Amino acid sequence: MNKKIGGLAGVIAGETAICTVGKEGLGLTYRGYDIRALATSSTFEEVAWLLIYGQLPDRRELQTYREKLMRLREIPAILKQLLEQIPLHTNPMDVLRTACSVLGMLEPEQNTHRAEDIANRLIAVFPGILLYWYHFHQSGNRIHTQSDEETTAGHFLTLLQGDKPNPEWRHVLDVSLILYAEHEFNASTFAARITASTESDFYSAITSGIGTLRGPLHGGANEAAMELISRFKTPDEAERGVRTLLENKEKIMGFGHRVYKISDPRSDIIRPLSQKLSEKAEDGYLFAISERIEALMWQEKHLFPNLDFYSATAYHFCKIPTFFFTPLFVISRITGWSAHILEQRRDNRLIRPAANYIGPASRTYPLMTERA
Amino acid sequence: MNKKIGGLAGVIAGETAICTVGKEGLGLTYRGYDIRALATSSTFEEVAWLLIYGQLPDRRELQTYREKLMRLREIPAILKQLLEQIPLHTNPMDVLRTACSVLGMLEPEQNTHRAEDIANRLIAVFPGILLYWYHFHQSGNRIHTQSDEETTAGHFLTLLQGDKPNPEWRHVLDVSLILYAEHEFNASTFAARITASTESDFYSAITSGIGTLRGPLHGGANEAAMELISRFKTPDEAERGVRTLLENKEKIMGFGHRVYKISDPRSDIIRPLSQKLSEKAEDGYLFAISERIEALMWQEKHLFPNLDFYSATAYHFCKIPTFFFTPLFVISRITGWSAHILEQRRDNRLIRPAANYIGPASRTYPLMTERA
Repeated sequence: MNKKIGGLAGVIAGETAICTVGKEGLGLTYRGYDIRALATSSTFEEVAWLLIYGQLPDRRELQTYREKLMRLREIPAILKQLLEQIPLHTNPMDVLRTACSVLGMLEPEQNTHRAEDIANRLIAVFPGILLYWYHFHQSGNRIHTQSDEETTAGHFLTLLQGDKPNPEWRHVLDVSLILYAEHEFNASTFAARITASTESDFYSAITSGIGTLRGPLHGGANEAAMELISRFKTPDEAERGVRTLLENKEKIMGFGHRVYKISDPRSDIIRPLSQKLSEKAEDGYLFAISERIEALMWQEKHLFPNLDFYSATAYHFCKIPTFFFTPLFVISRITGWSAHILEQRRDNRLIRPAANYIGPASRTYPLMTERA
Repeated sequence: MNKKIGGLAGVIAGETAICTVGKEGLGLTYRGYDIRALATSSTFEEVAWLLIYGQLPDRRELQTYREKLMRLREIPAILKQLLEQIPLHTNPMDVLRTACSVLGMLEPEQNTHRAEDIANRLIAVFPGILLYWYHFHQSGNRIHTQSDEETTAGHFLTLLQGDKPNPEWRHVLDVSLILYAEHEFNASTFAARITASTESDFYSAITSGIGTLRGPLHGGANEAAMELISRFKTPDEAERGVRTLLENKEKIMGFGHRVYKISDPRSDIIRPLSQKLSEKAEDGYLFAISERIEALMWQEKHLFPNLDFYSATAYHFCKIPTFFFTPLFVISRITGWSAHILEQRRDNRLIRPAANYIGPASRTYPLMTERA
C-alpha cells in the first residue's frame, strides 16, 4: 500500500475550528489559545466550557457551570447494580465504555435535549462510576458519589482517596486534564466523528471514542509508560533495560507522535510538575529513571517524550493506581470529543472513504462438492 | 471545505482483500464471489465463514460451524438481569451496543483467544439477547434462547415468533443476511477499523460498529424506508405524498448510494423476494406502493433504490417489527466487521488523519475580568 495513505497519515479528513496540533512542528492551541497559557492560567472546567461552548466562560458562567456539574454526579440505580456485578479485574475502560452505553439507554438523547448537557452529564458522572465500581469490589463499600469538591480533579481524588485531596495533587491533576482535553483528529475523536456522521446519537459517538482510546497505541500509552518505568530501581538499570528492549525492536510507549515532529508541548508542561511531586514522593526515584529513559530515547532514536510519558509518573506520585490513567484521559477527552461531535453535526456529511482492493479476482462460486 | 474531501468521499483510506463495491458502477463481490451467486447458492453461515476465515467452507466445516454457533447462544446471567431492567421503549440498537460492551467485560478478549471465536459468539448470541429483552418486556416471559434451528435466520424467527418458522420467511431472511453482511469501507466498518487500529480489543471495535450503524444515514435507513412506505394506503397516495416531501427538500431514505452510481445489485436481489412475499401478505399492497415510490424517485431524482428500500417490505411481510430491521443488519454485518478487524490487525497502522484548521487565529488568554 502507498505509505502516504497508510493510516490516513497527513490526509485531510475535514475541517475543524477547535484545535491546532503541531503548527511549526510544536504548537497546540484550543480555540486559538496556546496550551501553555491554558495550563498556567485556566482550570479544567474553563477549558471544558471553552471546548464545548466555543469561548471562555466569565466568572458567573464558570460558577454556574461548576455547580451544574456538581448536580450531575448521581449514578442511576440500574447502573449501580450493574457496576456491583462486574468483576474487579475488569479493564476500567470497559467499565466506562459500558457505562456510557447504558446511560444512552437510561437517559437517551431526544430532540428536546441539548447535546451539550449530555457532555456535561458524562464529565460529571464518570468519576463516580469508576470509583463506585472500584470501592465496591475493593471493600464492599457503596460510596456516595457526591463530594464538596467543585472541580473534576478534586472530586476524582476525593472519591478515590476518601479525604480532602492534597491541594498540590489536585492542581497537577487539573492541569493534566487540561492537557488531555483535546487533540484534533486523533483516532478516538475521528471515530466519534464517524459515528456522529451517520446521525447516530451522542452516546454512541462517545462510546466509540472510549473504545478507541482504550488501545495501547492511543490512550493506553500512559499506563504502558508507567509499567515500563516501574520495572526499574535505578537510572542505570533503566538504561540497560531500555537498551535491551530497543535491541529487541520492542516499542517504548510514551515517545514520538504522529503529528508532532520536534517535541510535544504538553510534555514540557507536565514534566516539571512530575519533578516537583517526586521531591516529596516515597518512590520519587522514579522521576530520575524517567529522565534517563528520556535521554536515552533521544540519543538512540531521536524520539521525544509525548504527554503520556511524564503524565505517568505525575499520576503515580498523586497515588492514582495505574489502571485509572487511561480512564482519566477519558474524563478529560469527553470535552474534546463532544466539541467535535457538535462540530460534525453542524455541517454533517457521512464519513465513508474508499479502499484499494487487493483480494482475489472474480471467481466462480463452487458447488459444495467442488470445495477443497 | 473542499467538497472532494468532505466525508472522505472517494479517498482511499487503506487496502482490503474482502470486498469490492461498485466495480464498473454496479458490482459487489465478497472475497471474489459475485453477490448474485452468493445470494442464489449460498447460505448466511457459509458467507459468515467465507468472510471471517477467508474461503468457503466444505460440507464438514459448514456443519461443524453451524453446530458451534448453536452452542454459543446462551446469555450470561448478569446480562439477562440487565436486559430485564432496560425499559421496552429503548432503541434496540442501544440494547445491542450495550450488550456487546457488557460481553467485553464478562468474556474479555485475552491473548489466548482466537478473535474469530468472539465474532462467532456475537453472531450466535445477538438474536437471543434482542428477543430475550423484547419478550420479557412484552409479556414478562423469560424465553429460552436456544432453538433447534441450525441457521441464524431460522433461529431469529423462532425466538421472535415462538413457532417453527415459515420456510419461505426463513429463506428470505437468510438471503437478506447475506446481502447485508459486508460492504467494504462503509462508515461502521471504518469506525470498527479505527478502533482496532489503536490495538483496542475486539468488542470495542464491534461496539463502535454498532453505534455507527445505528444512525439513519447508515443502518437506520431500512427502518426509515418502512416508516415512509407504511404511511400510504395506495400507490397514488404515495406518489402525492412523496412529491410533497421532495418539494419540501426532505430526504427519502433507501435511495441512492455513496459508491454505487447506476444501481445497487442487492436491491435487484431482494426486490423480487419482497414481491413474492407480498402476494401472500395481508398488507401486500405495500409492495405496489414501494414500486410507485421507486418509479417516482427515478423519474424525479434519478435515484435508484438501495438494499434498504425493498428489505423494508421484505422484513415487514415476514412479520418482523420495524425496530428490529437495523438490529438484523447488525447480526449480519458482524461478519463483515469481524473480517475487517482481523484484516486491520494483520497489517496495522494507527488510523489518524489530519484536519484543515478554520478556527480563530492565535489569541491572548484573557483574565477573568476581561471576559465579555
